[in-house]
Amino acid sequence: MDNAVGTNEKVGFNSWCPLLIFDSMQKLKELAQKIRKIGKDDPRRVLHSLKVGLALTLVSIFYYVNPLFHGLGTSTMWAVFTVVVVMEYTVGGTLSKGLNRAFATLLAGALGLGAHHLAALAGDKGEPILLGMFVFMLAAMATFSRFMPEIKARYDYGVTIFILTFSLVAVSSYRVEELIKLAYQRLSTVAIGVTTCLCTSMFVFPIWAGEDLHMLVAANLDKLACFLEGMGVEYFGEKMESGSLEGKSFLQSYKTVLNSKATEDSLANFARWEPGHGRFGFRHPWNQYLKIGAITRHCACSIDALNAYISTLQQSHKTTTDLEFKQKVQVACANMSKETGKALAELASSIREMKWSSIAGKHLAIATETACRVKALVPAENSTLLEVLISATTVSLLTEVVRCTNPVIAAVEELSRLAEFKRPEHGRKAGTVKPIADIESLPHAVIVIEK
Amino acid sequence: MDNAVGTNEKVGFNSWCPLLIFDSMQKLKELAQKIRKIGKDDPRRVLHSLKVGLALTLVSIFYYVNPLFHGLGTSTMWAVFTVVVVMEYTVGGTLSKGLNRAFATLLAGALGLGAHHLAALAGDKGEPILLGMFVFMLAAMATFSRFMPEIKARYDYGVTIFILTFSLVAVSSYRVEELIKLAYQRLSTVAIGVTTCLCTSMFVFPIWAGEDLHMLVAANLDKLACFLEGMGVEYFGEKMESGSLEGKSFLQSYKTVLNSKATEDSLANFARWEPGHGRFGFRHPWNQYLKIGAITRHCACSIDALNAYISTLQQSHKTTTDLEFKQKVQVACANMSKETGKALAELASSIREMKWSSIAGKHLAIATETACRVKALVPAENSTLLEVLISATTVSLLTEVVRCTNPVIAAVEELSRLAEFKRPEHGRKAGTVKPIADIESLPHAVIVIEK
Repeated sequence: MDNAVGTNEKVGFNSWCPLLIFDSMQKLKELAQKIRKIGKDDPRRVLHSLKVGLALTLVSIFYYVNPLFHGLGTSTMWAVFTVVVVMEYTVGGTLSKGLNRAFATLLAGALGLGAHHLAALAGDKGEPILLGMFVFMLAAMATFSRFMPEIKARYDYGVTIFILTFSLVAVSSYRVEELIKLAYQRLSTVAIGVTTCLCTSMFVFPIWAGEDLHMLVAANLDKLACFLEGMGVEYFGEKMESGSLEGKSFLQSYKTVLNSKATEDSLANFARWEPGHGRFGFRHPWNQYLKIGAITRHCACSIDALNAYISTLQQSHKTTTDLEFKQKVQVACANMSKETGKALAELASSIREMKWSSIAGKHLAIATETACRVKALVPAENSTLLEVLISATTVSLLTEVVRCTNPVIAAVEELSRLAEFKRPEHGRKAGTVKPIADIESLPHAVIVIEK
Repeated sequence: MDNAVGTNEKVGFNSWCPLLIFDSMQKLKELAQKIRKIGKDDPRRVLHSLKVGLALTLVSIFYYVNPLFHGLGTSTMWAVFTVVVVMEYTVGGTLSKGLNRAFATLLAGALGLGAHHLAALAGDKGEPILLGMFVFMLAAMATFSRFMPEIKARYDYGVTIFILTFSLVAVSSYRVEELIKLAYQRLSTVAIGVTTCLCTSMFVFPIWAGEDLHMLVAANLDKLACFLEGMGVEYFGEKMESGSLEGKSFLQSYKTVLNSKATEDSLANFARWEPGHGRFGFRHPWNQYLKIGAITRHCACSIDALNAYISTLQQSHKTTTDLEFKQKVQVACANMSKETGKALAELASSIREMKWSSIAGKHLAIATETACRVKALVPAENSTLLEVLISATTVSLLTEVVRCTNPVIAAVEELSRLAEFKRPEHGRKAGTVKPIADIESLPHAVIVIEK
């Protein structure tokens, strides 16, 4: 109670109003900084925003200029509508949506007219019932087709527009007299909208999905290279004993690679729609980028395992007894790490400049050879040693798996508290991993080892 | 040449026409099987498709029924339109889009009216210019706001509708006399559409994003558990020597976990919009699922490293000299693998049943303890042995990184061929990693090891 009174007094002393103003000023300032950062990180974002404004203004001219307006009537609205929905960040995105929209409108419009004529045969009373059935069936079938991965990836938007246009034409055919005129107006306004979008997208500072994908794949390789070269210098290098790796940026940067699949997939999907541009032909092998991306992620996974193992090691602070042996291994590790890093960096620059060089292969061959030689370093006095080494690695990797399961338990336990899971009735304090002493009384297979 | 003639003859012999029919029959059959599989894998997909058809048919009734039609006029179209665009697979998706659409329409409609009144002050000639400027500015600003991650994640669709409605109202205000009536009609039709969607989505076989997320997170834990338990039995277990692991399904299933981030993010995003349902309250801690998901992926990465190492080992076929030692390690590994698997399976079922149990912790404690004990297995006659062990693991992990860089080189080399990268002029055959003998002549750090 005392405490609460104290707090109240403090608040009273500072008085609310200036505090609130100061607070919101602070927040506004932060927001402004954030916005500036977003623009600075990629200035094309500002350009894209201006392009959307431009395309919309261009299309609204159709509405303001009298002769144009009288040709198309109020359906000019559809042009505005098309621009807002079709305009995407990349040329490929705009093309994909624009073409999907145009063809879906054409197809669904024709089908809608057909449905209207068919339904008209059923007479005044039968027509709405028949039309309703058509709409129901086509909508259900088209919606189901979206669950097919191929359609989902490339024609999802087209299916939406197909359902939309078919429903609009079929339903309004019941009321509108001049259906052909309506269809013509709708088609031409959609065409105007799509053309405006495509022109703005392709001829005013175009942003190509293909180029973005190209750069992203190279950048991801570079991130892995950066980690390995950083490790080679900072951890395995001369400075090894001097300090911890905490806070080094190269330890973190590769982690974004692990989650790059969704971005790569969508860029590759858009890139396929793009015409040839700059260094990229129309049938540029975009699929190959996805393959490289998948292998890169696998590599990133290996690196993650190495990183996790090393950070565990760093915490345990082993003392060294055989300095010479340790130094030899360390030099070999530094070499492997650096050479693999150089190979990846070389690959990245090879992609970026679209110029193949076999230097990457040479770097990797050095790394591979070092890996072979380092095994020969192991003193051969003990015949079981090689076996021990192999087992040691398996055990270490498994231990790593065991170790990283711990936070899973903690996280699920936190969920169980937050979401108020049921707990066993004789509930002891939940989620505490019991001390070893307690566990030893349980029967388990470890006893075999004790022999 | 001979070969080509032979092929032609064969084709001629079979004659084209029946071949084509047979071929397309075959394809149709495959398509039908595929469609059946999609429906069988998750019958809710069929239900969802029927629901979309139902919602559309319901809303088109407004058009067919005379009294309703006269109240709203041709803008009933907007209701049809809203249903097609807003109806999503999950309740959360529909709610998110529906509310975004409703509020964005309201806000943008009001702003559009304001812009109209402001522009009208500028006179007949100034009005379209001023309106154009407003549209340009608002569209550019709103588009830019979509680059902010927070807005992108939750309000992306709302921003689209905001730009759309503002442009429509501002632009058409120049021509349409009864702007208020138009705005009223548009708002009420959007409301009708959104309400229809929400009712169909929530009350007819609802599909909750939250429940899907809940199940997905548990299923991912189960996949990891399945791998570890499978490993414990098949690889470390008694059958170890009997055969290779090739073709075992548990080796592959965990791989989907690595790419689950995008799905989890979007489900969590939708789940936040959902009201309380079944076992999930309104403020269910969805963020915690994302945390568990991230840690699970980290675990999957460790497992991937282990899997890669073991499959490399399997190819090398080491002969065993010290059977007793090997067996001890193997038993310990089997134990660690199985116990960790059990812990993860326990966590999965704990999430699924929303019932916390501390059994997972016990299993993991056994695994951890085994990991500690297995180190004591190493014969202690050699003082450098522990060091050798630690180095061995680091070297093995690094070797794994080196090894998985190889396919990256091959993939980039393939890209360089497909995309016709430039090649160095004195081009020897590209992409071939040179044999070790050639590399030995290069100066490199490995020499240190040779001492």
